[in-house]
Amino acid sequence: MTKLRVHNLAVSLDGFATGEGQSLETPFGHAEGRLMRWFFPTNTFVSMSSHEDEAVGMGTHGVDDAFAAATNRGIGAEIMGRRKFGPQVGPWEDESWRGWWGEEPPFHSPVIVLTHHHRPDLVVGETTFLFRELPPAKALALATELAGGLDVRLGGGPTVVREFLEADLVDHLHVVVVPIVLGRGVRLWDGLEGLEQRFEVEVTASPTGVVHYVFTRKTR
Amino acid sequence: MTKLRVHNLAVSLDGFATGEGQSLETPFGHAEGRLMRWFFPTNTFVSMSSHEDEAVGMGTHGVDDAFAAATNRGIGAEIMGRRKFGPQVGPWEDESWRGWWGEEPPFHSPVIVLTHHHRPDLVVGETTFLFRELPPAKALALATELAGGLDVRLGGGPTVVREFLEADLVDHLHVVVVPIVLGRGVRLWDGLEGLEQRFEVEVTASPTGVVHYVFTRKTR
Repeated sequence: MTKLRVHNLAVSLDGFATGEGQSLETPFGHAEGRLMRWFFPTNTFVSMSSHEDEAVGMGTHGVDDAFAAATNRGIGAEIMGRRKFGPQVGPWEDESWRGWWGEEPPFHSPVIVLTHHHRPDLVVGETTFLFRELPPAKALALATELAGGLDVRLGGGPTVVREFLEADLVDHLHVVVVPIVLGRGVRLWDGLEGLEQRFEVEVTASPTGVVHYVFTRKTR
Repeated sequence: MTKLRVHNLAVSLDGFATGEGQSLETPFGHAEGRLMRWFFPTNTFVSMSSHEDEAVGMGTHGVDDAFAAATNRGIGAEIMGRRKFGPQVGPWEDESWRGWWGEEPPFHSPVIVLTHHHRPDLVVGETTFLFRELPPAKALALATELAGGLDVRLGGGPTVVREFLEADLVDHLHVVVVPIVLGRGVRLWDGLEGLEQRFEVEVTASPTGVVHYVFTRKTR
């Protein structure tokens, strides 16, 4: 059965999943790269920007990489919020924006971009972006169809993840708590009081100082 | 040199150190006992309510207890907020309230209770409560004097801890993150953006699901 999975969602100790002031230059706002610093040295990340045959031995292979490596395993489609696709708001005035990822995005699968504003489907490398205005359950139904029996990844940002958690559609949630106090930005946990009652929780501290939380939805 | 230490300060994943609706019956508000559930089975806690000679073998002796046991080591005085002493607000209309702890409180040392409202010193068992209206630095100076060369514990609640952290007076901060989403209450981290820059941080996950954070202030 297709599962909806969230991976590598980094939050600060005070629960912010992104900083204040997101822009083209600063996709995480004032948090800059600090929420993902644990991720950059991993073999999984290093491999994304290298040819596969030379990247196997590069980067770290510890617990942070073990979690990072699970991200793409068995994924057939992704759902993301518009803010993950780009910093623009409102109608698409300039369709030359093709995402942050250059000509070969790391998805290699259909990606549903949730947006109120119409735009034609966009093929970039092996990835097809479908711009759709859909409530969570319908977005998941479409993504499940596109995933062809594999799982669906919910790629963020935090507002989208929160909406799917509120709708109780998430099966697997991997949150990485980074030991910094951001003070402002977008909170992940707001509106999710009692979330832990719906999930089993496993906790692993990494020597790098981050803590990996795996929430697995209880069988219903 | 006397250090100011915070121990066993439990917060939810979303950063609340106490719930909403604190009262005589519910000192943690709607959080009830959930923030301290990791603490109750420890030998340290069990010993507090038993005769010492029979309590040594009782309770757990794992990592949660190792941290809990550090609480009283080398402490000569405590500073606490009025809300830790009791649920009352405003002038002391009824001085029959002698704290939550019965006739032998677990402090066995002077305790400064920060309050805007005058009340005479109060001796309960081996503990003397001194009710004082003092800003953080002056409260620490008095507590240091009373501690006689030992350390001072900052006993909470969260609002008081936050004030002392803002004033950069805390040397050792032990925070326990409990894997629950409380949704409302008193936040610990508000106003402390960038706190991690002043501290070394060590992280330990417990098999019970809580995570122990030890913040040690960098030498200045």
